[in-house]
Amino acid sequence: MPESTALLTDRYELTMLDAALRDGTAQRPCVFELFGRRLPGARRFGVVAGTGRLLRELREFRFGEDELRYLRDERIVSAETLTFLEGYRFSGSITGYREGELYFPGSPILTVEGTFAEAVVLETLALSIMNHDSAVASAAARMSIAAGDRPLAEMGSRRAAERSAVAAARAAYISGFGATSNLEAGRTWGIPTMGTAAHAWTLLHDTEEAAFRSQIDALGIDTTLLIDTYDISEGVALAVHVAGTGLGGVRIDSGDLPTVAAHVRAQLDELGATGTKITVTSDLDEFAIAALAASPVDAYGVGTSVVTGSGAPTAGMVYKLVARQDSSGAWVSVAKASADKASTGGRKAAFRTLERGKATSELIIVSDGFEQVATAAEYPDARPLHVTLVEQGETGAAFEGAAGVVAAREHHLRVREELPVRALALSRSDPALPTVYVDAN
Amino acid sequence: MPESTALLTDRYELTMLDAALRDGTAQRPCVFELFGRRLPGARRFGVVAGTGRLLRELREFRFGEDELRYLRDERIVSAETLTFLEGYRFSGSITGYREGELYFPGSPILTVEGTFAEAVVLETLALSIMNHDSAVASAAARMSIAAGDRPLAEMGSRRAAERSAVAAARAAYISGFGATSNLEAGRTWGIPTMGTAAHAWTLLHDTEEAAFRSQIDALGIDTTLLIDTYDISEGVALAVHVAGTGLGGVRIDSGDLPTVAAHVRAQLDELGATGTKITVTSDLDEFAIAALAASPVDAYGVGTSVVTGSGAPTAGMVYKLVARQDSSGAWVSVAKASADKASTGGRKAAFRTLERGKATSELIIVSDGFEQVATAAEYPDARPLHVTLVEQGETGAAFEGAAGVVAAREHHLRVREELPVRALALSRSDPALPTVYVDAN
Repeated sequence: MPESTALLTDRYELTMLDAALRDGTAQRPCVFELFGRRLPGARRFGVVAGTGRLLRELREFRFGEDELRYLRDERIVSAETLTFLEGYRFSGSITGYREGELYFPGSPILTVEGTFAEAVVLETLALSIMNHDSAVASAAARMSIAAGDRPLAEMGSRRAAERSAVAAARAAYISGFGATSNLEAGRTWGIPTMGTAAHAWTLLHDTEEAAFRSQIDALGIDTTLLIDTYDISEGVALAVHVAGTGLGGVRIDSGDLPTVAAHVRAQLDELGATGTKITVTSDLDEFAIAALAASPVDAYGVGTSVVTGSGAPTAGMVYKLVARQDSSGAWVSVAKASADKASTGGRKAAFRTLERGKATSELIIVSDGFEQVATAAEYPDARPLHVTLVEQGETGAAFEGAAGVVAAREHHLRVREELPVRALALSRSDPALPTVYVDAN
Repeated sequence: MPESTALLTDRYELTMLDAALRDGTAQRPCVFELFGRRLPGARRFGVVAGTGRLLRELREFRFGEDELRYLRDERIVSAETLTFLEGYRFSGSITGYREGELYFPGSPILTVEGTFAEAVVLETLALSIMNHDSAVASAAARMSIAAGDRPLAEMGSRRAAERSAVAAARAAYISGFGATSNLEAGRTWGIPTMGTAAHAWTLLHDTEEAAFRSQIDALGIDTTLLIDTYDISEGVALAVHVAGTGLGGVRIDSGDLPTVAAHVRAQLDELGATGTKITVTSDLDEFAIAALAASPVDAYGVGTSVVTGSGAPTAGMVYKLVARQDSSGAWVSVAKASADKASTGGRKAAFRTLERGKATSELIIVSDGFEQVATAAEYPDARPLHVTLVEQGETGAAFEGAAGVVAAREHHLRVREELPVRALALSRSDPALPTVYVDAN
């Protein structure tokens, strides 16, 4: 797989670049904004994720010999544009929401400033990463809320494309999951990994007893035995028979979980295995987790629904030109006019207003004149939402790598506390906070 | 990004390997099967995709120094297992459905044979690739059928994680799309790419006219102008004014498309631009495409819905141990027993039965004794579905790279002709063909 991320790009970005280099508009200073017109899945809040990955992939956004050869051979751009791309390096600035932050319709999640040429070509990569990761994080946060204090693990790699699976594990962790089954997510992003055995383990052995015995020999009695390959009651009895009452846990991966979990708990208690924990993992989503709140379940494993955004596999964010200089060097706010896809032009600053620690609105200050963008001082009870992510092409190290993931997770769990109670309900509804625009011109 | 694909794996695969190396079952010859219990989205047929990608990534499934260090540092497996993994190379065989082939519930899409140790560790990677790519291909085929002879382009990269976008473009192409916006899909898989300009192009310029003029200067009058940034009627008039009646095309990306397309066509004709083509691209899916069949539309661009599987972002396939040798070396068919996730044990051969060129059933021959697997000779009117993909660790080159994609697309379009008419309807229903199991023991 090529290291370069430069061709993870829609062809029209380069076609526009080509034409803009020809007519001179390529050097116009521009402001692009990445935002969502609505929340994925008609939910009450969204979670920003992907920022740390974008910063990493931005470093690899270089047109090397192989990339240039392809563009030349396919006659996608002119020789002049190839020369420009050969030296391409984003030298502009990106401000935006911290990873793990909540967002609402219209929240200016990323503001990318640079010449048209250097900023337009980042559209596809930025949207691919932010749309996928934020969709997963937004779904994962609801599962994390539904799970409460019970541990929650992500194990959906097999239901996501192989590299998306790593990103999904990372996004779920940021939104409060405690671990992942995905080893690459552990290696690349430092996320704790988990997992013991699948049904194949039991089926491989001549008897279920042989499989349990071998697993305990290898992993100790603290391991979790999967007890539903054949008959669940027999599986539970056998597990305790083999491991003793000190068995760490059992996992249930099929059946009507509230019923089965209650039976298994009663059976374990009766056998004296009162400390043996029950993990459930069968097609869970936020609703199934919530429905198990009163059941004797100790931990959840979630697969398909978290990696596919639980019905909303993309956050649907867009990347729009909102301001540019005209031929005289004056700034102009711009926006598409069509009724169903209108957007608000102009550069924006964003704040979350709070009352007694609870969020009350998403306050967005729109300003044509770039010097007058409002500051926090004008809104003393508001938390400013933008931080500097890239300055003159240099990335802020604090948001990158495994440390960036830990910081994003902590930030997410902290700001989630600001949500009003109505934001925590799982049913479809309007966004929990109103987006309030203030024109500061 | 690491080249190795070995850690794109659920931790429990290695935990099981670790325990199996310890108890001696690791060397048992095994047969794993990759199949779907049902079709994604309650559709009438599924499309197999991802095979060529899997074969490529299988080559990179190696545990190098970095991968081994991570596993050692995190104490995920024992020293003995690390030694095994250091020398790991899949030396077994994989037979399966050709890429682009149709599939139905229970179709044995891949049959992986090898020792438990070498075959179990491929589960996550194989499922990640096949589940994602087949979900996209299965959705894309319906869009391709709905579009009929009108050209259809995939442009959803921004709504899929960055590397999934490349795989999605590839899967859509296999299912009949004609082009993609994704340049990496063009470079890696040889897929034709397309694209001209976004709304940012118009907004960058002082006037819409300046934008159109510049695009035509750069790309010629054969280009496609995006005419809905401000007012569509004015956009159309301006486009023809600037380009003349020889303008190649206009693109509409908003509004109620049947209405707007009719208006735009009438206006173009009135202006004399009778040969100017209309491309529509606003949130299309198979239903919207079908609804435009009678509209004067010349080409479709589809984004979000194709890359997210149009409501079914994963195909939900599983990878199950179906047969293994016991301690005496005899083959034993195995299967999980639970009612909601039961599967059929035993090695399988698969055929599509045909009558007068139309498919009538998915015939699956189940055989415990591996020597008696049925051959095509017993079913003269049936097309055998399995081909050899990997033999003793060696990949069949015909299924790889850009040539493999072309072959898969041709195969898909050919076998789609075998579908009965009822399979082509877009509404939810049962699978178009019954899956018939024959026990050959």
